[in-house]
Amino acid sequence: MSTIRIEPIGVVRSKLTRCEEAPLQGYEGAPEAWLELTDSVTPGLLGVTIGDKLIILTWLHRARRDVLQVHPRGNPDAPLTGVFATRSQDRPNPIGLHRVTVLEASGHSLRVMPMEAIDGTPIVDIKFVLETREA
Amino acid sequence: MSTIRIEPIGVVRSKLTRCEEAPLQGYEGAPEAWLELTDSVTPGLLGVTIGDKLIILTWLHRARRDVLQVHPRGNPDAPLTGVFATRSQDRPNPIGLHRVTVLEASGHSLRVMPMEAIDGTPIVDIKFVLETREA
Repeated sequence: MSTIRIEPIGVVRSKLTRCEEAPLQGYEGAPEAWLELTDSVTPGLLGVTIGDKLIILTWLHRARRDVLQVHPRGNPDAPLTGVFATRSQDRPNPIGLHRVTVLEASGHSLRVMPMEAIDGTPIVDIKFVLETREA
Repeated sequence: MSTIRIEPIGVVRSKLTRCEEAPLQGYEGAPEAWLELTDSVTPGLLGVTIGDKLIILTWLHRARRDVLQVHPRGNPDAPLTGVFATRSQDRPNPIGLHRVTVLEASGHSLRVMPMEAIDGTPIVDIKFVLETREA
């Protein structure tokens, strides 16, 4: 299978600057953040409005890609588990999945919350949440 | 921002072979499919069991990457909308998001449903569903 090449569509701007201070999941007290999109993809935001629920896909650039099994949530007492049965950020292709609410839309930027990704995290895709089924 | 390089972790094996016969969303009558992982990442499946809910991230290799606005669901009467406010498969980085249930786990393969991605679609990540919040 051939390598997939992804150009980020933007970047997370957050007060979180270190992985150690980021909650494991957005709903565990993550702050708001700005999503700054690159100018070339800004037309893709047409129709995004305050209150919308979106799924943000990021590239967790600080994650380890050589990890296949972990103790969930870093708990050494938890049984060793394959990363595909967890939400570990360490995994072969560390794509972050974040469900957020739009607080503000301004030009090429969106203010959203909660967002546990740290400042500088590349954004790779944004999807509308289908309320009927999932996030 | 620098280019991200992703090596697929596996491939979708499905009776769906043409985009035209694939439903727009998994819950719209999509069939079951086998997810064949590459041997090198198989340890990442430790702990995945029948009945688990997983999120499968795929690379929609037939999608158009130069599309930024669409008429949702191909309906010409629907207002033109930015792809980030939709679930269009056409978008700059066409990552597919599929919520599935595990029907069978066998070696390096999982049988899951529903899966609307066509046969041969690369798989880029698998995540456990956090029941508390999302899919």
